[in-house]
Amino acid sequence: PWIAVESDSSDVTKRSDLHRMMDMTAEKLRLVGGSVEMVDVGMQALPNGSSIALPKVVTARFGEDPSKRTVCVYGHVDVQPAKKEDGWATDPYELTDIDGNLYGRGASDNKAPVLAWIHTVEVYKALNIDLPVNVKFIIEGMEETGSNGLDDMIVAQKDSFFSDVDYIIISDCVWLSRRPALTYGTRGNCYFFAEVEGPKKDLHSGVYGGTVMEPMTDLIGILDKLISPSGKILIPGVREAVAHLSDEEWKMYQDIEFDLESYKSEIGLSQLMYSNKVDLLAHRWRHPTVSIHGIEGAFSSAGTKTVIPAKVIAKFSIRQVPNMDPAVVEKQVTDYLHSVFAKRKSPNKLSITMVIGAKPWLADPKHPLYEAGKAAVKRVFAVEPDLIREGGTIPIARTFQDVTGKSIIMLPIGGFDDGLHSQNEKISRYNYMEGTKLFIAYLHEVSQIKKY
Amino acid sequence: PWIAVESDSSDVTKRSDLHRMMDMTAEKLRLVGGSVEMVDVGMQALPNGSSIALPKVVTARFGEDPSKRTVCVYGHVDVQPAKKEDGWATDPYELTDIDGNLYGRGASDNKAPVLAWIHTVEVYKALNIDLPVNVKFIIEGMEETGSNGLDDMIVAQKDSFFSDVDYIIISDCVWLSRRPALTYGTRGNCYFFAEVEGPKKDLHSGVYGGTVMEPMTDLIGILDKLISPSGKILIPGVREAVAHLSDEEWKMYQDIEFDLESYKSEIGLSQLMYSNKVDLLAHRWRHPTVSIHGIEGAFSSAGTKTVIPAKVIAKFSIRQVPNMDPAVVEKQVTDYLHSVFAKRKSPNKLSITMVIGAKPWLADPKHPLYEAGKAAVKRVFAVEPDLIREGGTIPIARTFQDVTGKSIIMLPIGGFDDGLHSQNEKISRYNYMEGTKLFIAYLHEVSQIKKY
Repeated sequence: PWIAVESDSSDVTKRSDLHRMMDMTAEKLRLVGGSVEMVDVGMQALPNGSSIALPKVVTARFGEDPSKRTVCVYGHVDVQPAKKEDGWATDPYELTDIDGNLYGRGASDNKAPVLAWIHTVEVYKALNIDLPVNVKFIIEGMEETGSNGLDDMIVAQKDSFFSDVDYIIISDCVWLSRRPALTYGTRGNCYFFAEVEGPKKDLHSGVYGGTVMEPMTDLIGILDKLISPSGKILIPGVREAVAHLSDEEWKMYQDIEFDLESYKSEIGLSQLMYSNKVDLLAHRWRHPTVSIHGIEGAFSSAGTKTVIPAKVIAKFSIRQVPNMDPAVVEKQVTDYLHSVFAKRKSPNKLSITMVIGAKPWLADPKHPLYEAGKAAVKRVFAVEPDLIREGGTIPIARTFQDVTGKSIIMLPIGGFDDGLHSQNEKISRYNYMEGTKLFIAYLHEVSQIKKY
Repeated sequence: PWIAVESDSSDVTKRSDLHRMMDMTAEKLRLVGGSVEMVDVGMQALPNGSSIALPKVVTARFGEDPSKRTVCVYGHVDVQPAKKEDGWATDPYELTDIDGNLYGRGASDNKAPVLAWIHTVEVYKALNIDLPVNVKFIIEGMEETGSNGLDDMIVAQKDSFFSDVDYIIISDCVWLSRRPALTYGTRGNCYFFAEVEGPKKDLHSGVYGGTVMEPMTDLIGILDKLISPSGKILIPGVREAVAHLSDEEWKMYQDIEFDLESYKSEIGLSQLMYSNKVDLLAHRWRHPTVSIHGIEGAFSSAGTKTVIPAKVIAKFSIRQVPNMDPAVVEKQVTDYLHSVFAKRKSPNKLSITMVIGAKPWLADPKHPLYEAGKAAVKRVFAVEPDLIREGGTIPIARTFQDVTGKSIIMLPIGGFDDGLHSQNEKISRYNYMEGTKLFIAYLHEVSQIKKY
């Protein structure tokens, strides 16, 4: 029934569904015995100048025994947009079981993991066993659009809700292969707008073409100087800042279960940027990269249009890794692109804006939280977990770390092929069921961590 | 009342207005004594698979004296889209007279010139003077979307309607300055799609960035090799094919009234591609140019999206001039971009398609038709006209020339600042009234042309 709620946080016309989703989450937590609160985190300003209520953040508490450790589980129940026409084989908002896979938008990201955590406390209750640790929940409904309101709420409740929390657990990511994994790092993201503005209005390319320096030509010219065909970032200073790959890291990467061939076939490419596992994983997780997402203001529809666009805005982003600093990267990118642009001797105006500057997050995979994770994986799956990083950005991890100072672990249960943000998102029954067992085992292992 | 009809041929929901516009045109021609026909040119296929009737082509005949010359006036009464919200100071579909300018969509392109031609024959009738030449009209309603149906109709009526036509007159363009002009050439247009296809679906730039060669990076890389910052086309063979500027042409350009400063301020740029008049006009009219219009398939909305687009299609066009040949250009562009792309060693797939290949049109400005034009301009305005070309493409001129073999003149009456296809389109009362006088004088001058 959770999948049937179209809790798309990016679509304001679905906001009542999203509110209902938060209510259902709170109700479910109450049903299994939690002390639940719904925290008002204010309003969301809309581009048209009006505003709309943000979904409340649901918090819950199970147990408050001061002799026990306290963990706080973070999750979200909003989803990315999805439409059948996008290429879904099933209705994205009707949970559909096919060959042991449960298809639906939000199945893996992040509704099933949230439910698995709720089932975890439910199991203890049903078996009438005391929870080995106190468990708190913080479940939000705006993750997919940037966790609006949550940062402020974390700051506000730093000394109340979070005061007795020892550890924060995030299960909003996936394994790298069929082998279970613990995630100890994410990349950050600096997202840039590069705007080139020329004529005061769009011009007809027949009538004016050849007489003006076109903003689009200028923009293409500077974008082409960001990264080489072989993936080398050309912005001075960026590569130099990156932490060197240690021998230990190299060895760790070498041991990770990862099949280049199946990665290639999953993506549908005959060749990747790097042809060996260590280089590929390193460039996925712990090296920066530049992606050019698109251009606003140019002609982007089907068909033909003979226009010289007057103002074009490229969107590109650079994934951040230790030891890059977004503020430094902002200056490096801005200075570099202006110097490249100056060589063109164009009368058009260039402006560079960094609109997102999210830092990377990195944990110590030898921390007791991770040792507990390894033990729990071994107990449930009888294998050692892969220790992995995430190429994407989960800014809330860094916020939790910076604001609360607590240790964090990312404990994924989703499959590598779950298709987050894509068509035909799913979670397998296997991952869902065994994942719940993993959570149960994990609480037990965490209860064994000695104060140190 | 013609302006009030929203005869937007690109919007199928306005089709009944367009049909009404053709009826009104036919009625007007009948009123002033023409033998009018409405020629069915068939159906228009719509993207959704259905079809809709094309507006009929209106033809009319005034006089059929075999001892006289016969001219055929071409025009169109459909218009470009327009909405008040686009930035119009007045309702685009309500003719508004401000300080001697008549504002409204289609005022200059092409309703007023068509009416001026109708008034021309009306004047002779009102004064009870025989027309000095036989006059035919061919007025269409699909010019703004590519003259659908008209090519076939011209071919079909080559030996009937067109058999006794000596000359074809097109008044669907504008002057270059405040000085009247005769237009003797237009550029053609080769419009290309360059598609780079990579992964089988869009990828998350965090999760996959750094491991794949991105189609967008590849596309930017090849687009950047089309044209230099200073406007030099880098595709081998293209510049070499262009007819050299003769001394005579240079002199002609030198004599044309054209003010670089007001051109700059009209466009809103501090610097143009060339800083002298002859180079600028030459590159506007008789040199090819490359414009990059935009990219389909990439992220083009406001805001941020962290996507690696799987398939991106750049739209660019190269304006054609004598002696370029679209078929040759297609091969030059395709070969060149494939060779540039090959150097990138990317696993992505590039395909180049030329979707429009319209040839340029060029007349001899010493042809008696043009001598007649010069004489008529001198009589009405007491100045020599500028002999100009048009940077844009008017494919119907080339079709008339290739199919009927008749000589063609473009005889504009619109002002250089009429804002065709733009907001606040207008024609001045001065141009409309004096333009009508020009047409009257022109018919007289054409009647004097000796058979040669």
